[in-house]
Amino acid sequence: MKLNIALLAGDGIGPEVIDQAVKVSDAVAAKFNHEISWTPALTGAAAIDAVGEPYPDETHDICANSDAVLFGAIGHPRFDNDPSAKIRPEQGLLKMRQKLGLFANVRPTFTFPSLIDKSPLKRDRIEGTDLIILRELTGGVYFGERGRKDDGDTAFDTMTYQRFEVERLARKGFEMAIKRGKKLCCVDKANVLEASRLWRETVQALEKEYPEVEVSYEFVDAVAMRLIQWPKGYDVIITANLFGDILTDEASVISGSMGLMPSSSVGSKVSLYEPIHGSYPQAAGKDIANPLATVLSAAMLFEDFNLPDEALAIRDVVNKSLAEGVVTEDLAEGGKAYKTSEVGDWLAANI
Amino acid sequence: MKLNIALLAGDGIGPEVIDQAVKVSDAVAAKFNHEISWTPALTGAAAIDAVGEPYPDETHDICANSDAVLFGAIGHPRFDNDPSAKIRPEQGLLKMRQKLGLFANVRPTFTFPSLIDKSPLKRDRIEGTDLIILRELTGGVYFGERGRKDDGDTAFDTMTYQRFEVERLARKGFEMAIKRGKKLCCVDKANVLEASRLWRETVQALEKEYPEVEVSYEFVDAVAMRLIQWPKGYDVIITANLFGDILTDEASVISGSMGLMPSSSVGSKVSLYEPIHGSYPQAAGKDIANPLATVLSAAMLFEDFNLPDEALAIRDVVNKSLAEGVVTEDLAEGGKAYKTSEVGDWLAANI
Ligand SMILES: CC(C)[C@H](C(=O)O)[C@@H](O)C(=O)O
Ligand SMILES: CC(C)[C@H](C(=O)O)[C@@H](O)C(=O)O
Repeated sequence: MKLNIALLAGDGIGPEVIDQAVKVSDAVAAKFNHEISWTPALTGAAAIDAVGEPYPDETHDICANSDAVLFGAIGHPRFDNDPSAKIRPEQGLLKMRQKLGLFANVRPTFTFPSLIDKSPLKRDRIEGTDLIILRELTGGVYFGERGRKDDGDTAFDTMTYQRFEVERLARKGFEMAIKRGKKLCCVDKANVLEASRLWRETVQALEKEYPEVEVSYEFVDAVAMRLIQWPKGYDVIITANLFGDILTDEASVISGSMGLMPSSSVGSKVSLYEPIHGSYPQAAGKDIANPLATVLSAAMLFEDFNLPDEALAIRDVVNKSLAEGVVTEDLAEGGKAYKTSEVGDWLAANI
Repeated sequence: MKLNIALLAGDGIGPEVIDQAVKVSDAVAAKFNHEISWTPALTGAAAIDAVGEPYPDETHDICANSDAVLFGAIGHPRFDNDPSAKIRPEQGLLKMRQKLGLFANVRPTFTFPSLIDKSPLKRDRIEGTDLIILRELTGGVYFGERGRKDDGDTAFDTMTYQRFEVERLARKGFEMAIKRGKKLCCVDKANVLEASRLWRETVQALEKEYPEVEVSYEFVDAVAMRLIQWPKGYDVIITANLFGDILTDEASVISGSMGLMPSSSVGSKVSLYEPIHGSYPQAAGKDIANPLATVLSAAMLFEDFNLPDEALAIRDVVNKSLAEGVVTEDLAEGGKAYKTSEVGDWLAANI
């Protein structure tokens, strides 16, 4: 197979972790006789600095014309504490999601046998956790009208959902559930929000089309609790953009390390693969960031192109590196801490 | 002291747990020579059934003319899966918060030495946790305009904040922090939401008035993670209504049991005290619900009336009941499970 992949390294540790995913993917391609051509493109604060725009048209063209996008991270602290900044790196991410139509963010949560004791949660609570949070990614309060009134003293954001947006996400959730544990949980705040009531009624209307799936409805506050108390109770969770943002980060503690959790964002055409950790600016340029979440995101990419052996090869080599302690300092725990690039080299060599 | 307390038992297990808090408070009043007169009033599904309204005017008058309100829980499952229900119990809670001006919800998170091993989190992560989440309670997306468009196919909710709303909550947070660990964390989503940017700029403007407080700003998704990874990193958290709803429930897992976490809601005049657990309908009427969160909410009430010895007497007897295993089935763990009413009797007798 020939794959054209757009490479959006972004900010902070983005470029470093992306480099390792490229090495590993190239090794997989060599082994399985595929050809990957990578096209780098600017995004985030890096793009603001270079061309004044966090998701330039040129970058969009590259993404739209590729088979998939591999993405690092976006964000820079100099924008975070400046509420008045007009242009911010995150706008690039949101624009990209919207323009590429990436309406569903798939975030698996699982544990690694060799890392289970790194979790802040007790082993018996998390061992065997295998859930997917399917987060709506191009709607909700992220994309509604927002602004100021009363001389800037009143700020507002609008949380909006349309039925078709809920329906297409929910269908994806049902289809995933059928292939897995056959349980779907719709997470909302229907006791307060009208948008959540639309979610609930839309999902309820679909239930009869998927009789083999057991559907439940839970409030987001309760789930924020239960996800930690008993994550094994969940299979596929579908939820709105903002709730998904919060719950997926929360769920990452189960695995013990955000540095391990991959994600994909899918839509009608090209899909995007990215680690769920952020740009981690404190570590940028130090060659210490954990590249595994990005490498595992590449595994999700191969899987989506119906190349399960290639995906498995990546997962196997990641497990091997964990078992043999070829890990960055966040996982080293007294043992030798390898550099980001050394981990990448080792993984590529061992594919 | 003479106290007039409005008693809003509400739904589900509300009446049962409220009964125990009354017993214990009366015992405290007897011991310390106070006089409490309790005035019961209808709220929630119970009020809908009786008078068609979840927070009737009569109930409001009783609350507004009392010194404090002791509240049980609200909510009934028959409304949850009926997105079209026009009148819902939760509306009563929201109306009450708004009409009583209860703009700040104070939710402490701490651990009990005798229960620490019940937490899903490891002991070393949580031992000594002592944080307060101060949740804004009368603004944000809970109270903005909401509705449907396009024949019901589009639903919207509006998240709105005014500068004065943020400022009065933030001042309360700064004042609490001064009396405690001197750290304040403003939790928002300022990289996306305009309302969050108003929060950030308002809190930033107050920093110089409280130079002894160390202020930080974190995104809600990151906090959802860090709260579990390292709760001891937080002292006072201030946050918007919706984020506070999610984070306070999440934080309750630290203590190992939602059945233990009290709260107060304060405003300009009368304050309200309630357990953070919900109406737990499955347990209603069975005399098995854990009354300790409500009892500890009564302790917060005494404290706010500047009666620290009375508050301490309650906390001491609760600790004693935990140490001696006089607990409901959720905490019994193989030992004898006491009834809700038995726990209340024991606590009152041991004050
Ligand atoms: C950077 C930010 C805008 C983004 C989001 O909130 O979606 C991030 O937290 C994520 O989850 O990808
Ligand atoms: C019942 C519900 C409306 C309420 C809320 O969301 O505020 C509850 O979850 C709470 O936290 O008190």
